[in-house]
Amino acid sequence: MSILIQNVLVNGEISDIRIRGPRIDQIAPSLNPEEADEVINGKGQAAVPGFVNGHTHAAMTLFRGFADDMELKPWLEEKIWPAEAKLTEEDVYVGTRLACLEMIRTGTTLFNDMYWHLPGAVKAVREMGIRGILSAVFIDLFDTEKREEQIEQNISYLEAFRGKDPLVQIALGPHAIYTVSREALEWVARLSEEKGLFIHIHLSETKQEVVDCLKAHGMRPVEYLHDIGLLSDRLFAAHCNYLDENEMDLLTESGVHLVHNPVSNLKLTVGKSIFPYKALSKRGASILLGTDGCSSNNNLDMLETAKFASLLQKWQSDDPTLLPAGETLRILTEAGYRAFGVGNGGIAPGEPADILLIDLNHPQNVPLYHLDSNLVYAVNGSAVTATICNGKLLMKEGVIPGESEIIAEAREAARKFARTL
Amino acid sequence: MSILIQNVLVNGEISDIRIRGPRIDQIAPSLNPEEADEVINGKGQAAVPGFVNGHTHAAMTLFRGFADDMELKPWLEEKIWPAEAKLTEEDVYVGTRLACLEMIRTGTTLFNDMYWHLPGAVKAVREMGIRGILSAVFIDLFDTEKREEQIEQNISYLEAFRGKDPLVQIALGPHAIYTVSREALEWVARLSEEKGLFIHIHLSETKQEVVDCLKAHGMRPVEYLHDIGLLSDRLFAAHCNYLDENEMDLLTESGVHLVHNPVSNLKLTVGKSIFPYKALSKRGASILLGTDGCSSNNNLDMLETAKFASLLQKWQSDDPTLLPAGETLRILTEAGYRAFGVGNGGIAPGEPADILLIDLNHPQNVPLYHLDSNLVYAVNGSAVTATICNGKLLMKEGVIPGESEIIAEAREAARKFARTL
Repeated sequence: MSILIQNVLVNGEISDIRIRGPRIDQIAPSLNPEEADEVINGKGQAAVPGFVNGHTHAAMTLFRGFADDMELKPWLEEKIWPAEAKLTEEDVYVGTRLACLEMIRTGTTLFNDMYWHLPGAVKAVREMGIRGILSAVFIDLFDTEKREEQIEQNISYLEAFRGKDPLVQIALGPHAIYTVSREALEWVARLSEEKGLFIHIHLSETKQEVVDCLKAHGMRPVEYLHDIGLLSDRLFAAHCNYLDENEMDLLTESGVHLVHNPVSNLKLTVGKSIFPYKALSKRGASILLGTDGCSSNNNLDMLETAKFASLLQKWQSDDPTLLPAGETLRILTEAGYRAFGVGNGGIAPGEPADILLIDLNHPQNVPLYHLDSNLVYAVNGSAVTATICNGKLLMKEGVIPGESEIIAEAREAARKFARTL
Repeated sequence: MSILIQNVLVNGEISDIRIRGPRIDQIAPSLNPEEADEVINGKGQAAVPGFVNGHTHAAMTLFRGFADDMELKPWLEEKIWPAEAKLTEEDVYVGTRLACLEMIRTGTTLFNDMYWHLPGAVKAVREMGIRGILSAVFIDLFDTEKREEQIEQNISYLEAFRGKDPLVQIALGPHAIYTVSREALEWVARLSEEKGLFIHIHLSETKQEVVDCLKAHGMRPVEYLHDIGLLSDRLFAAHCNYLDENEMDLLTESGVHLVHNPVSNLKLTVGKSIFPYKALSKRGASILLGTDGCSSNNNLDMLETAKFASLLQKWQSDDPTLLPAGETLRILTEAGYRAFGVGNGGIAPGEPADILLIDLNHPQNVPLYHLDSNLVYAVNGSAVTATICNGKLLMKEGVIPGESEIIAEAREAARKFARTL
């Protein structure tokens, strides 16, 4: 399979891009279209690398708008947890398909997921054709029996799904230090090192988590994970709102990837401290952005998340020069791809063919003084007209095959939750 | 001219909507399509009132992405002011057309504008067909000669454009207390009262403005305007970030309309205090939302602004129940229309026919537990498929006649600014 994109704005010039199999083959003007299976007219469009969503719970698209504007406790206890208790593997399949549909439409080609009923998510990602780093939620609530069950389940998932598909990577998903025992976290650390598995965890999302950790373990959360041996460049830590200087040093030195989720943090009102970007980026920490799940966002649009991140960080630091557009965009692309070991997140020969086309005739993209600025501040995911992942054309001219069926199935699955409202 | 929208979700039910001339005539199932000049299939769509943008500088679309990520002083002195010095009336016409195009596409049917070269804006609004409350920037820099010039210019604009078009209202635009003399503000207050004109001003955007006002006048900005006699329900005050209790009382009691611009406030980093929504809404103040100009936003999408406002206010007040979706949406519609005296901002017989159709098959709009929630938190302006203003169909199925020409003209106008980058 080969694709030729003609006359597209790429890396600052109008050129052609040839894709062969899963990789970018050549970038040059006037490449021979006869050799291509599919020719795309890129005129009036820009080619940019696909975006990385560093933290989400994809199937929670089914709970988009299910319950909003509530205090955290009743929101979880009266709405989200009872609804999740009814979730089946089929629901997770349907919800993850809807999520992938939205991600293809808004330009995300790689997402880092943690959720229930992993086989449903694996099936959805394989069908939809974007890259998923998929982990099962591991929660043992400090109960030995539950821990053994969870360990067994994770091992069976690894056997069933690991290395079976180029798009799916299975990771370990210990939920958080307040829901997972030390013994389980130690098991996660050992298995991750032994098999080279990524780990996905929630970390220091709220101040309460820090207070409780100090009380229980006499250490702050990052120190506790360090003590367990969980800190490494295989770890993806979502939120990281409450960090002290020593924790920032530990995270940076160990190469942990920190995922900032600005929209979720504002919506769930996690308190006055939100992801210390300035201090972390000065240290050279690995930083990604994420949407979090659709119950706390309520979408998966990485360009919207990029705008929230950039503006919130500027304002928080009282520094309008912080997190400029180009840097924000590199977090969505280069930083993300490198962190997950999938190339360099750029459009260059040899790189994975994960490419978006952006409509330059969208009114919000006019004028075009600086593409990076327009992407981060002016347009949103709706400016994406084509999405290519792993060399496959998933959306062309805004059309995704099978879209209406995926939407109909998601609506149907949502009915049983709507009845409980 | 009559339009019939069939089988659309409106006010919670599937129904038909008949529009006759500039108003909504009837809402009922199965209205006779033979009587309509235009029949729109509303299946899979929701009809909602058009949105109000309470504060913008429309023609600044020409400076979208021109200069970002800079400190305020060099941004203004090295980029924005030199560029604005080159602006012609033709540029303002072209830039306002681009702004109206974007607003039609994202669902804004009424905007409150303040900018240079007013005749260019008037011409653009008349052609584009949405409602503009248009004011010329009034800046005298405390110079008597400039003041006389500005007064003369405003009077000639009123004579030329006032009451000539149902879509255009001419207002007075004293820029701010730090750029306009007391004498000029007194003239504005008198003329506004005499002729019933709206007034559009920037107010207490930064702490510095308050500090300087106290120093110069021995009063805070709102007290100063009160002293001048400018506070009334004809006044639209943009920003209002730094208010004390007495100022909030004064603004509420006098019926001033306060316009919160969350995206601009974050991007320009106006300091830690941002629009005290909770305290103002408790008092019953009239509150609107605005985008501000495209040089500090960088788009005109009111649904994006609604999400920023709702989430920022929740987080600032540490209260996730603050500014819930329904309330936010009422600010964009009912509050906006009532403030400008253009009906009630609802879809009901007798109301102005300013109606949007929203795509319910957009993945971000699935599932549909609560339309308000999806509008504010999940989708953005790209979910708008049709825009009707004053009974005229301006966008149908995502198509706006003349769009490519407007975009080409804006690109051309932007060239001369690009050369100065």
